[in-house]
Amino acid sequence: MNPSASALLTDLYELTMAQAYLEQGMDGTAVFEFFVRKLPAHRNFFVAAGLEQVLDSLSRLHFTKEELAWLDQSGRFSSRLVHYLETLKFTGDVDAMPEGTLFFPHEPVLRIVAPLPQAQLVESRVMNLLNFQTMVASKAARAVLVARGKPLIDFGLRRAHGAEAGLFAARASYLAGFVGTATVLAGMTYGIPLYGTMAHSFVQAHADETLAFEHFAHTQPDNVVLLIDTYDTEAAASKVVSLSRTLKAKGITVKGIRLDSGDLADHARKVRCILDEGGLPQAQILASGNLDEYRLRDLIQVGAPIDSFAVGTAMTTSSDAPSLDCAYKLQEYAGQPCRKRSEGKVTWPGRKQVYRYYANDRHLDYDIVTTHDDHLPGEPLLQLVMKNGCRLAPSPGLAELRRHAAAQLGQLPEPLRSLEAVPAYDTRISTALQRLAQTVDRRV
Amino acid sequence: MNPSASALLTDLYELTMAQAYLEQGMDGTAVFEFFVRKLPAHRNFFVAAGLEQVLDSLSRLHFTKEELAWLDQSGRFSSRLVHYLETLKFTGDVDAMPEGTLFFPHEPVLRIVAPLPQAQLVESRVMNLLNFQTMVASKAARAVLVARGKPLIDFGLRRAHGAEAGLFAARASYLAGFVGTATVLAGMTYGIPLYGTMAHSFVQAHADETLAFEHFAHTQPDNVVLLIDTYDTEAAASKVVSLSRTLKAKGITVKGIRLDSGDLADHARKVRCILDEGGLPQAQILASGNLDEYRLRDLIQVGAPIDSFAVGTAMTTSSDAPSLDCAYKLQEYAGQPCRKRSEGKVTWPGRKQVYRYYANDRHLDYDIVTTHDDHLPGEPLLQLVMKNGCRLAPSPGLAELRRHAAAQLGQLPEPLRSLEAVPAYDTRISTALQRLAQTVDRRV
Repeated sequence: MNPSASALLTDLYELTMAQAYLEQGMDGTAVFEFFVRKLPAHRNFFVAAGLEQVLDSLSRLHFTKEELAWLDQSGRFSSRLVHYLETLKFTGDVDAMPEGTLFFPHEPVLRIVAPLPQAQLVESRVMNLLNFQTMVASKAARAVLVARGKPLIDFGLRRAHGAEAGLFAARASYLAGFVGTATVLAGMTYGIPLYGTMAHSFVQAHADETLAFEHFAHTQPDNVVLLIDTYDTEAAASKVVSLSRTLKAKGITVKGIRLDSGDLADHARKVRCILDEGGLPQAQILASGNLDEYRLRDLIQVGAPIDSFAVGTAMTTSSDAPSLDCAYKLQEYAGQPCRKRSEGKVTWPGRKQVYRYYANDRHLDYDIVTTHDDHLPGEPLLQLVMKNGCRLAPSPGLAELRRHAAAQLGQLPEPLRSLEAVPAYDTRISTALQRLAQTVDRRV
Repeated sequence: MNPSASALLTDLYELTMAQAYLEQGMDGTAVFEFFVRKLPAHRNFFVAAGLEQVLDSLSRLHFTKEELAWLDQSGRFSSRLVHYLETLKFTGDVDAMPEGTLFFPHEPVLRIVAPLPQAQLVESRVMNLLNFQTMVASKAARAVLVARGKPLIDFGLRRAHGAEAGLFAARASYLAGFVGTATVLAGMTYGIPLYGTMAHSFVQAHADETLAFEHFAHTQPDNVVLLIDTYDTEAAASKVVSLSRTLKAKGITVKGIRLDSGDLADHARKVRCILDEGGLPQAQILASGNLDEYRLRDLIQVGAPIDSFAVGTAMTTSSDAPSLDCAYKLQEYAGQPCRKRSEGKVTWPGRKQVYRYYANDRHLDYDIVTTHDDHLPGEPLLQLVMKNGCRLAPSPGLAELRRHAAAQLGQLPEPLRSLEAVPAYDTRISTALQRLAQTVDRRV
């Protein structure tokens, strides 16, 4: 069973509501928009991610015979619903911000326009896909900003929340500017560059640490990156120096070492001296071990001689904000704009567009959220990407999306690059949208 | 592509190390143990979960032709490794605590004994599986403890980290004592009872709130649970009362209502009055909306008339502790116990067993972690579940595991049931194990 591909990866109420819609003949056009209500603490922006998987999921939407049989025998659903699901395909339109685009609270990131039962059924999975990758890309981008060009690698699979999370975290962090991942399947699936060294177990399995290093070097002569903190970091660094002479005679160069515990800045300085004095100035230092954007910033600020960083759990789980306050809300049905007024969860009605304005043609200045038909001079961020269930163009590819994300981060105003929350980016609600909201309120 | 089933869902270094082991003829027996180093803040215990998926993953371990071809053409690996992976199966032994068992830091939860390359290769996925479900079950158990018998339902799919996380969160929370989930695929896959109501979009799609309720009632006459906070909660409760009379004439009973925003205790009290005075004393109140164990405790402490709770994001993501400080460490190779001494990450060497002791034959009193061959009178927690790659018994089934978890929670000493951290449970390291550690240190 492949949970990633199952149409039953949805909430029960999506099916229940679809049944009700069918029975009432409510298959008019529905407009749902996905947005995030507010920034997590200490955050200043989001990076959109996950659209590729949403489009893939929509274009493959179908119920298998086995799933249909299960639904039927569950006794919960009408045969009318089961019959409808038998031939169900997604036939709607999707507008979205390209992956890698910066966005802010209350800006629609994706819009689905489809017959109501379809647009409703896909809610759970669309949210599940956009929430996770957007969350990871937004967190990873912070690490990229503070790393100031030093390479970052995703080492987070082991504590990612399951298989898909591990795979998608590799994708979202690469999109946001990481240089690669340790997750092999992400290499095969997305062509993301792979990185890896050795585990402590490798050292432990050998009777002697130097022997472990030597064996590794012979097996991976082009990638001799040695983990030196299993027993005593500086002692191991000296062993690396000694060994490097033997290896050199065989044409093998020590590419670098990895530090994974203790005071990384202190160890890096000591190890850098040992390597330099031992004739290995070119050997690089990779650091790992509970790193996040704050620790990266601190290590870089104190000038720790670390060349690259592996970031794992904190990024893969977005540990300080493991979910976004996101929503997928009905904004229009059968031509009528609508709006939710639940306490603390009020939404802006209707189909919308976000226009972006730049200061000096370079940095983001402000955005205007307005109605879909209120054409403004700024840069429209939502683009039609799927029409009648078909993608308008093939996937742009991860490399292009990654360039787009990098360009976007380059346009981020300096204050918003901070790891602490600064005064919010200026997102304006247009007069047209405010007027529409008043009209809807008067009607309801 | 099904990420859940791919042997490439692993870290690059697992393959690199496997290659090195093969080249050095290091296919001796390795012993790895999975454990958690420390409790997250405010936590007092863990609930073991995910073993079923680990055993399933181990027994299905194989590389597909497509994966082998990709590895081969990547140029990273020796043809010897690729050839080895072609016929690879897991042939090792597994000892583990049954799912649902309470455990504490530094206690091995699972042991794998297998030829070194195999035991190494499975590391990333074993950790990925055990970390997530154990984390969710441990969080969900806290909610179950404070709910004091009130039913809890998993509503967390939309913000779970991908497909597998949504599915496994439903399983782990049910194991820990939730009564069911909204995730349909978890109903089909694990037989977990399904629950659901309606979304705000359902109400909004109708021109009139009462009409929405009426349509829903006719479609789901046996499950009339109405969401009443889309516009004005108390006004909607009155509409439910009026509607209930019309429905009664048609033999349809209003089963309950759902509150999803605002001050839940206050709304619940007002709505309870409206329902009671309107002749609906049997109609139940279900509450949802950013609930976690703390909000549950508060709502129950103030006596809010809420009958059941839906818990979503906080539980599915284990929001306060979205990962465990878990490790899968080599404890013995080729008959030699070993131990990692990295700063802050020292491990206890060798194969181990955990013995549990009870106070008055009822509550947990203390545990002793000792060497595998040091037979003590207490209850041994690790059991052999897989021998030479074959399960010793079929899966016990989720219902039985859930009963085991409930029994375990019943044995939790009162102080450990607190939502705040209390003095740690008494986990002792035996003299035999301390002696072994000294021996290993002397050798290294």
